[in-house]
Amino acid sequence: MRALHLPLAFLLLFSASNCFAQSKTVAERLGYPRDAKLLIIHADDLAVAHSEDAASFDALDKHAVTSASIMVPCPWLSEVAEYAKAHPDADLGLHLTLTSEWKTYRWGPVESKDKVPSLLDGDGYLWPDNEPATKNIKAEDAEREIRAQIAKAMSLGIHPTHVDSHMGEFFTRADLFAVYLKVAREYKLPFLATLGEEAPPALVALLSKNDIVLDSVVMAYPSVPADGWKNFYLKTIQNLKPGLTEMIVHLGHDDAEMQAVTVDHPDYGSAWRQRDYEVVTSPEFKKALEENHIIRVHWSDIKKLL
Amino acid sequence: MRALHLPLAFLLLFSASNCFAQSKTVAERLGYPRDAKLLIIHADDLAVAHSEDAASFDALDKHAVTSASIMVPCPWLSEVAEYAKAHPDADLGLHLTLTSEWKTYRWGPVESKDKVPSLLDGDGYLWPDNEPATKNIKAEDAEREIRAQIAKAMSLGIHPTHVDSHMGEFFTRADLFAVYLKVAREYKLPFLATLGEEAPPALVALLSKNDIVLDSVVMAYPSVPADGWKNFYLKTIQNLKPGLTEMIVHLGHDDAEMQAVTVDHPDYGSAWRQRDYEVVTSPEFKKALEENHIIRVHWSDIKKLL
Repeated sequence: MRALHLPLAFLLLFSASNCFAQSKTVAERLGYPRDAKLLIIHADDLAVAHSEDAASFDALDKHAVTSASIMVPCPWLSEVAEYAKAHPDADLGLHLTLTSEWKTYRWGPVESKDKVPSLLDGDGYLWPDNEPATKNIKAEDAEREIRAQIAKAMSLGIHPTHVDSHMGEFFTRADLFAVYLKVAREYKLPFLATLGEEAPPALVALLSKNDIVLDSVVMAYPSVPADGWKNFYLKTIQNLKPGLTEMIVHLGHDDAEMQAVTVDHPDYGSAWRQRDYEVVTSPEFKKALEENHIIRVHWSDIKKLL
Repeated sequence: MRALHLPLAFLLLFSASNCFAQSKTVAERLGYPRDAKLLIIHADDLAVAHSEDAASFDALDKHAVTSASIMVPCPWLSEVAEYAKAHPDADLGLHLTLTSEWKTYRWGPVESKDKVPSLLDGDGYLWPDNEPATKNIKAEDAEREIRAQIAKAMSLGIHPTHVDSHMGEFFTRADLFAVYLKVAREYKLPFLATLGEEAPPALVALLSKNDIVLDSVVMAYPSVPADGWKNFYLKTIQNLKPGLTEMIVHLGHDDAEMQAVTVDHPDYGSAWRQRDYEVVTSPEFKKALEENHIIRVHWSDIKKLL
């Protein structure tokens, strides 16, 4: 039911070579050699659950991840806002959200419901999956909602360093991608996007040479075996190519709350999030970054280039 | 900050003797002797957190409580709706909610925000406490919101047996109490209210002799020592008077989620809820009910008398 694999499917289309290659690479603009391997280690889904927040705050505090993004419509936003105010250097963006994908636990829009009717399922929550979302959402409602999400985050004292897209919903239609770009540019926020030869032309056409796009995105996927989880990440680090990569992780504890949130959905479930947390905070992960000369960067570094 | 004691303060004013004493008592109308001691053992706050749901479902399954009520605006409503559909005999009402009282974890209204502006704090959530709620809420917005809460519960397959009032907000002003009564009567739902010689006359005046009111309400309070918790409940059972009493409990587990929800608020906090859960599921509690000839009744029994 929950097609959380969709953003991955999309992002994989956007493979390595950047067709907007600029005279200077992002690495060079940040003061590194042209062929440096830059990595943003990014925790998604903050505010979705206390378990997610606790694991992500711990990984941020330990510098095990460089960055994270926040789901503004979710119930634990106030907990994240408190963290953000207490940690003004934490690299926190907004995980712009148009879906509410879990079975037992749901959220609605930030905007007044009657102003964004196409965002709502029959129960008044955001759509439970990409398919009905992409079929039903009107771009103007999506724009209204993400403007409300950004305004709410800022009013709670969060100063976002970037935006990205929960479940990749903004990457499923060109008009949604256009809204995402428009609002990000207006707020002068860098945004998650990669692009390459296989990217949908209708989306690629919306990017300009002034946009900073990632060279690649890496993420665990459902066929990675649980007992090969750490090995998957270590191999991924060994195989990183020069350029700017984001590694997306989902951090949580395999506890009663997260088990109930992700019930009947082992993909991106509580054990998955526990494994991600254990890998990124492990000494082997840290050692692999060092041994492979990976330069850890933040979205706030990218923001300064805009 | 969170004046959760307010409903208690209000309800204590409404002491034993029922000034609308009818020729037949509720006990007699239910087929029991006139001086029978009837007790509804009621778990509040379902849907507020998974921890609350898990403890309350367990207590309902064990018949340790007779009844419970649901907070419709809260994120775990879908979990409760699934339980309600799987347990059609469970005696579940609606804990009509106009406040969002926790620090890290918040919820908004069910109704479109711009249709109920007086219900919202500056962050777009329901008010965090009774004081600003009572100062700001317009009765027409409260009515719109509780109609939306009832409609939403029903659309999710919940068939409420009664209504009551989260944090007693509907008991803080006569016009709010009037809305509560109007909507409850329209849906033919019994409602939580007691009344006695010390009850506010403006509220008492709104009750009619056709309403079924409780003779008393009992609940733990902050000055009950943690190590005297069970003893408090056992004494309360020993001291029950003839008539219809509701014992309000708040069930949860003292786990990471509930500790985070109730952070900085030991009153009605996670340890409090764990103690309530342990008491109502204890053999001593069950034995005290038996030894004191307490007749356990449900709101669904009361509903049949309407």
